Amino acid sequence: MTIDEKIGAATPKWNYPEHILSLQPSVIREILKLTSRPEIISFAGGLPDPSLFPLDEIAESTKRALQEYKGAAVQYTLTRGITPLRELLAKRISDRGAATEVANLLVTSGAQQAVDMVTRVLTEPGDTVLTEYPTYVGALQIFDYRQINVVSAEMDENGVITDQVEEQIIKHQPKLIYTVSTFQNPTGISMSEERRIKLIELGRKYGIPIVDDTPYNELRFTGQNIPTLKALGGDDVITIHTVAKILAPGLRLGWINARKEFINVIEKIKQSDDLHAGTLNQYICHDFCKRGLLEPHIEKIKKHYGAKRNLMLSEIEKQFPAGIKWTKPDGGLFLWVELPEHLSARELLERALKKNVAFVYGQPFYPDGSVTNTFRLNFATATHERIVEGISRLGSLLTEVI
Amino acid sequence: MTIDEKIGAATPKWNYPEHILSLQPSVIREILKLTSRPEIISFAGGLPDPSLFPLDEIAESTKRALQEYKGAAVQYTLTRGITPLRELLAKRISDRGAATEVANLLVTSGAQQAVDMVTRVLTEPGDTVLTEYPTYVGALQIFDYRQINVVSAEMDENGVITDQVEEQIIKHQPKLIYTVSTFQNPTGISMSEERRIKLIELGRKYGIPIVDDTPYNELRFTGQNIPTLKALGGDDVITIHTVAKILAPGLRLGWINARKEFINVIEKIKQSDDLHAGTLNQYICHDFCKRGLLEPHIEKIKKHYGAKRNLMLSEIEKQFPAGIKWTKPDGGLFLWVELPEHLSARELLERALKKNVAFVYGQPFYPDGSVTNTFRLNFATATHERIVEGISRLGSLLTEVI
Repeated sequence: MTIDEKIGAATPKWNYPEHILSLQPSVIREILKLTSRPEIISFAGGLPDPSLFPLDEIAESTKRALQEYKGAAVQYTLTRGITPLRELLAKRISDRGAATEVANLLVTSGAQQAVDMVTRVLTEPGDTVLTEYPTYVGALQIFDYRQINVVSAEMDENGVITDQVEEQIIKHQPKLIYTVSTFQNPTGISMSEERRIKLIELGRKYGIPIVDDTPYNELRFTGQNIPTLKALGGDDVITIHTVAKILAPGLRLGWINARKEFINVIEKIKQSDDLHAGTLNQYICHDFCKRGLLEPHIEKIKKHYGAKRNLMLSEIEKQFPAGIKWTKPDGGLFLWVELPEHLSARELLERALKKNVAFVYGQPFYPDGSVTNTFRLNFATATHERIVEGISRLGSLLTEVI
Repeated sequence: MTIDEKIGAATPKWNYPEHILSLQPSVIREILKLTSRPEIISFAGGLPDPSLFPLDEIAESTKRALQEYKGAAVQYTLTRGITPLRELLAKRISDRGAATEVANLLVTSGAQQAVDMVTRVLTEPGDTVLTEYPTYVGALQIFDYRQINVVSAEMDENGVITDQVEEQIIKHQPKLIYTVSTFQNPTGISMSEERRIKLIELGRKYGIPIVDDTPYNELRFTGQNIPTLKALGGDDVITIHTVAKILAPGLRLGWINARKEFINVIEKIKQSDDLHAGTLNQYICHDFCKRGLLEPHIEKIKKHYGAKRNLMLSEIEKQFPAGIKWTKPDGGLFLWVELPEHLSARELLERALKKNVAFVYGQPFYPDGSVTNTFRLNFATATHERIVEGISRLGSLLTEVI
């Protein structure tokens, strides 16, 4: 007699919470699936260029970490992250202008988890958060899943418009302000120092934490460094870091820099969620930094990405017809294109895919999804040859449609 | 003028959700802090023995993975986990009796995360789950944080008493049944085949998913293999696996084996939470398995742990006075001691620590915290010498107090 015969009743249906069933898969991940064919020149990804990953040094750091720390390198560890890494990070961040102690840091499994955990410590379902307009789509996905309302303030070339931020605060009492202050995803725009100070002032005045998501901060090619929100605002700011764009995303390592009391609270969540970030990955990252490899590696990446940014900007200048606007970021991975209002970037993508060129249309980056004439270009991943060819094809297409 | 002078107002207080502030740090982690001094003979940890971790092979697998997969080994990857690992796992699980396809699997950042995510897919705050009594304290921490009520059914030497399970189902309509069916943490008890079949029958009859957390399943030293709940119950069972006890916990790798529709739902949560488990760690694990190293490594661990279990049991037999009961597990890491009802295991721990011996008292493993006369011994981590000495000290202490 089989088990099914023994048990009799049929396998029952299970019920899942409505708000999970209604979650949409990331539009960007869907587009990336479309664009994985090799003949497609893709400016769609948010990925760093894998040809720049320091593979030999990662293998070497793994070997060294296992030799030095032995079993401890792959054993359970502290929920906050291994102490030598947090010590090294505290010093590095302090040296760069934002006084930080070890007790201000908690290591996460990447920046996505950090945004999620920070959200869960500062909000309950039904609360409201304030973001830039447009903003990082992965953060919007988190807010959606956590049943958080999103209100926004528009941006100009100096970043988020702080007068609009204050209006929205008064109107909606958000529980946190989420910003990608520097080389923003998706626009590439950086907030000016004046706006940063004004934003901190608003956070302080209304008692609202400012969450600065900084994956691109260290990738500046041109222009002057701007003091970070953390350097300016100290305990008023929660900063989220990741190794994704300066070392390798697959290590799934990030860290949160915040007031000590906040770290004490978030530690409880991290422990309940997944105990701690990968131990070996933390030791790899620690060894890589300790050997002094991180700074020259960042310089190398910046040189490569900066050259591609220059190339893409000069090709756009040559190829795009009048009536199209675009940002000229001083760093990061992305630039942002604005079409005349009557044109749909989504329809443009469909036509572009027929010419084997891809990008991400802007709509999913707007919390209310109401802007349809913008799109994002990643300048960092395609080869020089493909940038020239892809922008040329896009230029012809735009000339046709405009 | 400093930024503080510019901004004026003082740094405001932030508010955190009540249910997060009220979370208690894990009692076990607190005890582990107490027992980290080298002079303490600790049977407290839930850790595997780090001297058994295959460090050279992990270094070698890292090197091989980076050579073979290059940038892809440290790049972003699929939310479900890298395909070669899922293929290998599906085959391995199927070969062991539970027919499993790649689409049934999702890789997580360890088993703790798997339990948390499964809970979030099957419950809303305020819902009820059913566990064994006692049960794994890390699961209780998750239920507490997610504001889930816990009801329980007692165990005997054949595992959870299924008549009690049915009574509790009728009374409380739990949304899931959580079990550590084999070599349970904390008791070391395994559910008999008859009880497994009965449990699946109940899950089917009342439409309740059975979640089987299986970190110790492969660590059998003696006795006959029992078919897994998954092998018996198929789509009625969600199984949680981890490499923590068979390879290394610091890789933070686990996987969920469940109906395809369930994997589709949980994929959305995983993407929103932290995108995916560490890419490099997945390739390391894949290479380690592909080279055929996992099975002999498990045999090696079993030999070591089995010898220590035998030693601890025979020392207990010699040293513990009459009136004390204990389990005799066929595998896993733990055995469970029951004192006469009037004795407090927590007070015993205080006295044991003065003799430099440590264990974990049982109270935190009971959802209602009402049992005070049990404690857990980890037999797998201490050396043979220390097992003999530690059990001798415990025996003297018990003879004093009984």
